[in-house]
Amino acid sequence: MNKDQAFHTAAKSMGLSFDGDIKIGGNYVPLKRDGSTIYISGQIPRVQDTVMVMGRVGATVDLGQARLAAQICAMRALALLQRECGSLAHVQAVLQITVDVQCAEGFTQQSEVADAASDLLVQVLGAAGTHARTSVGVYQLPKNASVELDMVVKTSMGSQSC
Amino acid sequence: MNKDQAFHTAAKSMGLSFDGDIKIGGNYVPLKRDGSTIYISGQIPRVQDTVMVMGRVGATVDLGQARLAAQICAMRALALLQRECGSLAHVQAVLQITVDVQCAEGFTQQSEVADAASDLLVQVLGAAGTHARTSVGVYQLPKNASVELDMVVKTSMGSQSC
Amino acid sequence: MNKDQAFHTAAKSMGLSFDGDIKIGGNYVPLKRDGSTIYISGQIPRVQDTVMVMGRVGATVDLGQARLAAQICAMRALALLQRECGSLAHVQAVLQITVDVQCAEGFTQQSEVADAASDLLVQVLGAAGTHARTSVGVYQLPKNASVELDMVVKTSMGSQSC
Repeated sequence: MNKDQAFHTAAKSMGLSFDGDIKIGGNYVPLKRDGSTIYISGQIPRVQDTVMVMGRVGATVDLGQARLAAQICAMRALALLQRECGSLAHVQAVLQITVDVQCAEGFTQQSEVADAASDLLVQVLGAAGTHARTSVGVYQLPKNASVELDMVVKTSMGSQSC
Repeated sequence: MNKDQAFHTAAKSMGLSFDGDIKIGGNYVPLKRDGSTIYISGQIPRVQDTVMVMGRVGATVDLGQARLAAQICAMRALALLQRECGSLAHVQAVLQITVDVQCAEGFTQQSEVADAASDLLVQVLGAAGTHARTSVGVYQLPKNASVELDMVVKTSMGSQSC
Repeated sequence: MNKDQAFHTAAKSMGLSFDGDIKIGGNYVPLKRDGSTIYISGQIPRVQDTVMVMGRVGATVDLGQARLAAQICAMRALALLQRECGSLAHVQAVLQITVDVQCAEGFTQQSEVADAASDLLVQVLGAAGTHARTSVGVYQLPKNASVELDMVVKTSMGSQSC
């Protein structure tokens, strides 16, 4: 199974489609390329027009829901990469991801939330999906999202074509 | 109007001057260069010695004040780039910006705050000002600043000269 | 005194050893290389199996303890670099560090916490240790750590060997 098939399989098993617009909520671009390096903007767990997981993890949102949120953020990032590059085959390495979790005062399982995104990246991209990571508990996120995730990615192609 | 003129016009319309020292509050450097890539340290909305916007957005600070804070942070970053490179003409691309907003528990308009910085970058730099972005609501910021912004920038010149 | 000796001296003066495993708390890698650039995952102040400084800075944790936490995070990052590269002599530049401080509502000395890490980097690495920096006050951190620190580093060697 190649990376694009693995992405399709992951979306199917989540019961979600990432075929439509990957909407963003402000005056920025979803990703920015610097030669073979791509910076992906912070993704919240939005599918089409709906933020799927909102609220404070450890209070109104449980660990399982937060992990789903992290997975949706990662799938959005992969969908953006797939469109930019034509195929996920061009993803050579996920260099770094940051996972911000809107959490309750005493919630300390940010790593367990982020693991859901990390596992998904390896599941879809194989060895290219391993990455450096920082996960943090934050006070709020845009649109009351429970999780936000950004990443820096290395592709096999330069700025002319991906 | 070139980029340096656009910067000057933006400062004038804000009624602020960024001609003096761009002071930083710790034992780090305002920017660090890696060849043509420049990492700019987190900027708070300080003009000369005064942090212009302090406090919690959505509580004692309103959206308009927070947007001004984001603009001042962005102007400081541009002022640093202008000094480092001699002219903003050398800025090829803003790759990524992170906007941290000190906010109230239920404040979810981090994107609307960050948009003020994003719009300013495009206003001054044109197409070179479009960028990937992550905005987050944080619990506190240095010196009780309402907003902090950092960025990664690509310039047209290498490490020998900018 | 070379960089490896300076690292050893710093560890000794802290009364801590960084010789054992640098354990991480999730399904990611401690660092990821992109040619001569290395992304180091967020480090918490853990020595062996023990998180040395836990809790909220400005409430149950004071500035001195928080500064020690920042130093331990920086030492972990240096230990990881030393193992990856064989010697800290290969560290050419610390490009950027982010310091996240789990803090009380009114704690605004994030820069003073981060300075402890910044000073240590310059103490061990000399001019190569100067860096761009962002410090932020966050709501929680993995494992209730008081501080988390990540960094991007430039080395003198490419991807084949460091």
